[in-house]
Amino acid sequence: MNANKIGYLGPRGTFTEAALEGLLEGQSDSVETIAYPTVVAVLDAVRSGEVGRGVVPIENSLEGPVTTTLDALARHDDPLVIIGEYALPVRFALLVRPGTELAAIEKLATMPIAAAQCRQWLDQNIPNVQIIAASSTASAAKKLGENPDCDYEAAISPEVAAKHYGLDVLASGIGDDSDASTRFVLVSRPVKPPTRTGADKTTLMLFMREDHSGALLEILTELAVRGVNLTRIESRPTRKQLGDYYFSIDAEGHVDDARVAQALTGLRRVCSEVRYLGSYPRHDGKESSVAHGASDTDFEAADAWIAAIRERGSGRS
Amino acid sequence: MNANKIGYLGPRGTFTEAALEGLLEGQSDSVETIAYPTVVAVLDAVRSGEVGRGVVPIENSLEGPVTTTLDALARHDDPLVIIGEYALPVRFALLVRPGTELAAIEKLATMPIAAAQCRQWLDQNIPNVQIIAASSTASAAKKLGENPDCDYEAAISPEVAAKHYGLDVLASGIGDDSDASTRFVLVSRPVKPPTRTGADKTTLMLFMREDHSGALLEILTELAVRGVNLTRIESRPTRKQLGDYYFSIDAEGHVDDARVAQALTGLRRVCSEVRYLGSYPRHDGKESSVAHGASDTDFEAADAWIAAIRERGSGRS
Amino acid sequence: MNANKIGYLGPRGTFTEAALEGLLEGQSDSVETIAYPTVVAVLDAVRSGEVGRGVVPIENSLEGPVTTTLDALARHDDPLVIIGEYALPVRFALLVRPGTELAAIEKLATMPIAAAQCRQWLDQNIPNVQIIAASSTASAAKKLGENPDCDYEAAISPEVAAKHYGLDVLASGIGDDSDASTRFVLVSRPVKPPTRTGADKTTLMLFMREDHSGALLEILTELAVRGVNLTRIESRPTRKQLGDYYFSIDAEGHVDDARVAQALTGLRRVCSEVRYLGSYPRHDGKESSVAHGASDTDFEAADAWIAAIRERGSGRS
Amino acid sequence: MNANKIGYLGPRGTFTEAALEGLLEGQSDSVETIAYPTVVAVLDAVRSGEVGRGVVPIENSLEGPVTTTLDALARHDDPLVIIGEYALPVRFALLVRPGTELAAIEKLATMPIAAAQCRQWLDQNIPNVQIIAASSTASAAKKLGENPDCDYEAAISPEVAAKHYGLDVLASGIGDDSDASTRFVLVSRPVKPPTRTGADKTTLMLFMREDHSGALLEILTELAVRGVNLTRIESRPTRKQLGDYYFSIDAEGHVDDARVAQALTGLRRVCSEVRYLGSYPRHDGKESSVAHGASDTDFEAADAWIAAIRERGSGRS
Repeated sequence: MNANKIGYLGPRGTFTEAALEGLLEGQSDSVETIAYPTVVAVLDAVRSGEVGRGVVPIENSLEGPVTTTLDALARHDDPLVIIGEYALPVRFALLVRPGTELAAIEKLATMPIAAAQCRQWLDQNIPNVQIIAASSTASAAKKLGENPDCDYEAAISPEVAAKHYGLDVLASGIGDDSDASTRFVLVSRPVKPPTRTGADKTTLMLFMREDHSGALLEILTELAVRGVNLTRIESRPTRKQLGDYYFSIDAEGHVDDARVAQALTGLRRVCSEVRYLGSYPRHDGKESSVAHGASDTDFEAADAWIAAIRERGSGRS
Repeated sequence: MNANKIGYLGPRGTFTEAALEGLLEGQSDSVETIAYPTVVAVLDAVRSGEVGRGVVPIENSLEGPVTTTLDALARHDDPLVIIGEYALPVRFALLVRPGTELAAIEKLATMPIAAAQCRQWLDQNIPNVQIIAASSTASAAKKLGENPDCDYEAAISPEVAAKHYGLDVLASGIGDDSDASTRFVLVSRPVKPPTRTGADKTTLMLFMREDHSGALLEILTELAVRGVNLTRIESRPTRKQLGDYYFSIDAEGHVDDARVAQALTGLRRVCSEVRYLGSYPRHDGKESSVAHGASDTDFEAADAWIAAIRERGSGRS
Repeated sequence: MNANKIGYLGPRGTFTEAALEGLLEGQSDSVETIAYPTVVAVLDAVRSGEVGRGVVPIENSLEGPVTTTLDALARHDDPLVIIGEYALPVRFALLVRPGTELAAIEKLATMPIAAAQCRQWLDQNIPNVQIIAASSTASAAKKLGENPDCDYEAAISPEVAAKHYGLDVLASGIGDDSDASTRFVLVSRPVKPPTRTGADKTTLMLFMREDHSGALLEILTELAVRGVNLTRIESRPTRKQLGDYYFSIDAEGHVDDARVAQALTGLRRVCSEVRYLGSYPRHDGKESSVAHGASDTDFEAADAWIAAIRERGSGRS
Repeated sequence: MNANKIGYLGPRGTFTEAALEGLLEGQSDSVETIAYPTVVAVLDAVRSGEVGRGVVPIENSLEGPVTTTLDALARHDDPLVIIGEYALPVRFALLVRPGTELAAIEKLATMPIAAAQCRQWLDQNIPNVQIIAASSTASAAKKLGENPDCDYEAAISPEVAAKHYGLDVLASGIGDDSDASTRFVLVSRPVKPPTRTGADKTTLMLFMREDHSGALLEILTELAVRGVNLTRIESRPTRKQLGDYYFSIDAEGHVDDARVAQALTGLRRVCSEVRYLGSYPRHDGKESSVAHGASDTDFEAADAWIAAIRERGSGRS
């Protein structure tokens, strides 16, 4: 039984591993964590049942969406759902084998997104360094620490990876923006959504019917009229042709909220396809604002009223 | 038992009586019809149970709403519902006692709304005539025919009233607009609405929450987002102060249509009060246009989809 | 030269005359006031140039719009504009010839709208009285006071008419609602609108393009997107056929406000016809709320910005 | 004078160079093209005046926006504008030094986005290859061809680069999707926009006022009410904190279209900041659909009408 196995973007020492620990905090069940080399490999392991859940990065406060993750969740025929999220401050360190000096670094390895976030420090300190693309920040550190044939002299990585792989921290806090953070999501095969908390978020992929101008306004109106706020929207390519998009969105609230459920049914009626990607507690615990008339109680009262009208021509009790 | 008694704005010979006959056409039950002197008297008789149903005029193609009827339906604490409507071409005739000539007419009686519609003919033919307000066109004819002390010489009335009250038709078709018509409604105490036909209308009174600018846009959006068209809207005074209104509206469709029911629940959530005044077949048999995604089947499919998501995280069947 | 002649719905002693006095208060020019027997006669006198301006009732706090006035302004090919408004508390009195007692009253004359507002008092005090329709409340009093052949014994009228026509006040304050008031408008042939005050209103008639569902939502959006509030809306019959309407609306603000002007141009682009019926100071002096970004300064800054972009690709100053 | 110098993402042989040639086609002026190593370097050269214009990739049909470009255009205090765009089918080839066989490839260099698009071919043919991040596809080929110390054996690059750098094409058309294409833009310092063609696009960055839910619906309504369609929208991080975004959008039409200009002024009034990034002919020549009432003629007629009303109270000519 693999329900207690959790895959993550490894190897040990990645920000993703730290996020995984944050996501599990307070849970009493023992879990086994398994590192995978790529985001796609993590999601495939969840799909196949090799692991029960997976943790992958989905958004960075500087660079925006991790499109690999967005697209891998959206496009596969076998959908997954998000059941939790976690935001982690991102601090980068420059790791080297013990004894290496800055002047000796000709090549360094890291994820491209991490290199981009350390651009200023690199330009000022080792402007001519060659960047080698690694599939994760920790994998760059791991190879440097464990593989004698490694052909680069440094890795940009979370500081914690130094300890795992026997490396020295030559510089820390080298990111351009000290407030940077990354959001990670916990995914599983489709399951009953986690209990709503009042501070939830729902993620959707929306595909438009063809030749339908004003479609986006229509979508937003379906949400607004039920008092559901949008927190993020992205045109993502459908991969058919340039300029053909679907929308990736996050909305406030949980599918168990009446207002969200009714907004979703509205979207389903006007879109060609709505893919539900999960309702889950927000990382920041910020409660959804509920507009006048948009609480569950309001929806129930209105439903009872209409039922009475249909039965006896009057909604009075 | 008064279920088969129907009150109408009398006396015999009114347009309302003709509308009543139209509304009953094809019904096999025997009914007893009872004339009342005013619209309010008809509605009060329905409220008290003296009659099971009532017929009153509600709108004229030239003058607009019969506000007495609109307001009497809306404002009373004991609401009634509309269960049918009928539109009748309105042709006016000038009735006199046998032998009376045009030149001899100094005063004539009719409803003020009827006089208004014959304004041109009167100005050209008897410009100095004095108009006496009657509570119905037929009551003016009835008094002229039956009461020797009657102090006016003519009545503007439906032509049929001549026969009932022993009068002559001095001129017919004297209305300014030969296409004029009046709409009448059949009302009852609250009952299960008549079976929907696909060509129905729903009448509502909407009261806004206070200090809420943009409220009307909000109301229309609640209807539009469910694909429900509005056919009539009126600001009607709440009688509190000048400029304080409620809205009287007619919408396409029946409360048993999913789109109408959901629009109504939406209105109830955003308005301070929604008074349901009935769903009933349209007089013109014009079928409601149903926008893409707004059929009952679409609503049911969407509800099943959301139920599956709530249960197991996926709406796929 | 007739510029200083003002027509009103007479005769002397009507509420309209009182409203005229209110409208002229504080104006130093001497004016000549001329009474006309009907609303249409007042408007025709303005159109012909017989008088420079006219005063007519347009709305009552109990009964709603004076549709005769609305329609006479809207439908005539030779349009007029509203240049002022005034609201007057409406108190009705029962006037009789000196010596007449209540028990002796068999017939009374007044405007039908006035009789409707005194319904309760009449039902309780002289329930069998016959109502004779007069073209104004004061004309009923005038005939009673001046014409020995008058065939009714009482008039419902403003109390002031007693003095004008030598009558006694048998009962005063007989209206059902002591807070009732009527709104009157000052109209003229098209002229440059009165200077805006910040507490203005603009009246429009809107005709839709055919076969265009959702048209009303579109209209309201044109107003809302420029931050213009609607204060009144009425479906009024076009007189073509039952169910065919134009919209009569009042909006906050003055055509000299940038937001109102742009909203009007938007309406003109989407409607088949927009008839401008005037911008004028509100009777209640309530200032228009101006949403963020909707002031004249905001509109001017935005226009300057777009001009700079068109000229040199940058809106920076 | 540098007006005829054009910078591009080099070195020679990149897709960007091919796009530059497409953009210049039919222009008679002689130009000098200069290769820069990064997107940011190209944009900086335009900003400094070192070159008059620059060409950079902005969107890929598979991966979506080139966020480096979007952000570099949006965030810099010294804004640039887009004055043209070009779309290029993207076909990748695997280039090697003459004689290198597939089995000998341990490392290959390319842009990460290119590697992502050849994922399937790589997994099937050289699954264990190590990917080295290059700043452009052609730079990877150039180093391989020109630098004997180059430590990788292959480059993924446009096929044309083989000729420039003396390499062999070991495999061509290795992209996962044979219809992939990339969109490139021609940028300059702010200048009067290129003449409108009727098939144009306008790019904007929109920053919201704080704490303003429903802001996105408001933005879209500003566009829709003037009949302006949106073709792309992206939440892009403001880099302040996770979940704080600005919107990057493309709209149909040109700032010289009245409807676009008025929509932009509307956006400027409701947003905290609108950054104009250019109006330019669309790469696909697709003409903007112009809704009823949204042509320049319609806007001019409406403006003349309102001017007449302001002047003399009537819009009739």
